[in-house]
Amino acid sequence: MIHAGGAAKLQAAGGVRALTFDATAPLQLSSGEVLTPLTLAFETYGALNVERTNAVLVCHALAGDQFVASPNPITGRPAWWPRIVGPGRPIDTNRFFVICANTLGGSMGSTGPGTVASDGQPYGLRLPPITLGDTVRAQSMLVEALGIESLFLAIGPGLGGMQALNWASAYPRRVFACATVASAARQSAQNIAFAEIGRQAIMADPDWRNGAYLQHGVRPAKGAAVARTASQIAGLAAPEVRARFDSARARERFAFTLDTETVSARHGGAGHIDRFDANSYLYLSRAMDGFDLAADFGGRLSNAFQGAATRHGVFAFSSDWRYPVDESREIARALIASGAEASFVEIRSDNGHDAYLNDEPAFEAALTGFVDAAATARGLALQGGAG
Amino acid sequence: MIHAGGAAKLQAAGGVRALTFDATAPLQLSSGEVLTPLTLAFETYGALNVERTNAVLVCHALAGDQFVASPNPITGRPAWWPRIVGPGRPIDTNRFFVICANTLGGSMGSTGPGTVASDGQPYGLRLPPITLGDTVRAQSMLVEALGIESLFLAIGPGLGGMQALNWASAYPRRVFACATVASAARQSAQNIAFAEIGRQAIMADPDWRNGAYLQHGVRPAKGAAVARTASQIAGLAAPEVRARFDSARARERFAFTLDTETVSARHGGAGHIDRFDANSYLYLSRAMDGFDLAADFGGRLSNAFQGAATRHGVFAFSSDWRYPVDESREIARALIASGAEASFVEIRSDNGHDAYLNDEPAFEAALTGFVDAAATARGLALQGGAG
Repeated sequence: MIHAGGAAKLQAAGGVRALTFDATAPLQLSSGEVLTPLTLAFETYGALNVERTNAVLVCHALAGDQFVASPNPITGRPAWWPRIVGPGRPIDTNRFFVICANTLGGSMGSTGPGTVASDGQPYGLRLPPITLGDTVRAQSMLVEALGIESLFLAIGPGLGGMQALNWASAYPRRVFACATVASAARQSAQNIAFAEIGRQAIMADPDWRNGAYLQHGVRPAKGAAVARTASQIAGLAAPEVRARFDSARARERFAFTLDTETVSARHGGAGHIDRFDANSYLYLSRAMDGFDLAADFGGRLSNAFQGAATRHGVFAFSSDWRYPVDESREIARALIASGAEASFVEIRSDNGHDAYLNDEPAFEAALTGFVDAAATARGLALQGGAG
Repeated sequence: MIHAGGAAKLQAAGGVRALTFDATAPLQLSSGEVLTPLTLAFETYGALNVERTNAVLVCHALAGDQFVASPNPITGRPAWWPRIVGPGRPIDTNRFFVICANTLGGSMGSTGPGTVASDGQPYGLRLPPITLGDTVRAQSMLVEALGIESLFLAIGPGLGGMQALNWASAYPRRVFACATVASAARQSAQNIAFAEIGRQAIMADPDWRNGAYLQHGVRPAKGAAVARTASQIAGLAAPEVRARFDSARARERFAFTLDTETVSARHGGAGHIDRFDANSYLYLSRAMDGFDLAADFGGRLSNAFQGAATRHGVFAFSSDWRYPVDESREIARALIASGAEASFVEIRSDNGHDAYLNDEPAFEAALTGFVDAAATARGLALQGGAG
């Protein structure tokens, strides 16, 4: 049941549903600029209960989209987190009302650099820069428009985890529980460097056309492929990276492009690669670079959660060198220092950062435990409703 | 005094000196292929003593060359390590005979992808793949041709540190002391990922021409610039990286190319950037990817140094996230486990990996101490000769 209205208008086309906020509800950006109209494409799963206390917001990662638990009708790729969200899964859609929105700046229906601006041309680089604070503010407008005052849970991996954490800090009374997965409270220098190389590669592609490639009917496919390679390699565990580039393979010389079939299968099929939008990568990676939750709180991360009642689960994978376990531990320490109830779980895994997408029974068990305990505390019955 | 002869022929042109080994002294590569003729361009500083016991081999980093203590006559850029090598410096050229060779696969006179092959065309990608073991074997031929049976010291930063360590393992009786600086015994997954993105960016540049850009009179400047950016950012300390990409700078949007003046000044002037050779980057970065000294010794690094009498100094900088202190500590642990005499020094610095190029008095003091103690043990007089 969707409760839109007022400034928000619901539209659906080609299997993509979106809520558009008109000029009476503009999005104030951290940059000082104002974004209007604002569109957020989203999917929902399950049913909102009468008390409206069972809503879960899933925030997707850089390579993700709103189709967390169902196939993407545009790319045809399957749900990206079917092990975690669905009937009988840790985030049980028989029990919870799950919302997942394409992130602001994305390319799957939400306002982003590919959106047509008021002059009839795609924004391209004319879209103002976006911060994760802006993204979360836009999401909160969506959640409110859906008639939900307070989320039961905000959760996400990577970029999505940063957003969930930002939710808990910005709206402590509107988030009952928060789960960050393979993420961090601040983008590391290493990740910034990776992103910058990817951006430079995109901008070096002649087909990028200074960001106006859509108007020219081209795509910076080569530059985007380099940026994509960056994320793909960084998602692998260290031994797997080394195995792909050890000296025995030196004989393959420079024809050693990644085994894209394997990697893209993990990310939900080749569609992922076809839909990788270069300008969205520029905006979203730039937003991640600037993410430093403590910076807005005098440099002390614990201050970001002071006095909040949100309960937190912080999940990290032992072989993740993109978002190392220590960065999650830092979040957990700050939460505990702030007086919050926080569980920190390190899952032993050989699957690197991508572990969150893989079959990881220990992760599923730990997440189920966290969600069930929070649901009990919220007074949500263990058995789902009509389903 | 240079003692070439036999299979080796000394040549000098345009300020670059090189020793070329003819077909009677081919370089057997790890790949099984044979490289001949083999040329190694090199510089020397100071004088070899009568006993031939004061030779120091400096191995340069990925962005370096043989001009460790004098200006590069081709690029005009100044010496890259003047604080460390020179009269009265930690590696005192009044006291030691210092050799620095352009690394195999490089672009400053040694055999590399830009070298003209027997058919009159540059090798390009026809050059066989190279490992760091091959590089060290080539260097040992040079050292021998110079009439030196045993080095007093092998030293280098980054790639050069890997080579120094490989020297100590491959030729334990020919290296009295070994100093690795901001380096590792194995290339990390993170560094492999960085390198792969740089390589992909080069190969995506239409001017790369499948490696045959020299024949076409072009250079893959854009792709090379991306690869260069990778090394530049990775050389900075984490806070500096974050300061360049924080959210306040988001307003600069995507015109945020690195401040190349600052960075290239640190690397010895803009010449560094002009001389960056794309194919050399492919070969050298690939060689580094495959470097894993323990792998050749049943996975135990300590086995690589078993029974050797070489004394080791392992130097790391606290803010280096490209070659983190822990990777140096791992070398030191393995050395101690092997029974070697090893000092491990962590220098507190805010200058990241590039600290080795910066003014770091604590590093200079520690290195001087290590060198002087080794020189005393070798029976080298503390006061230099005629100078």
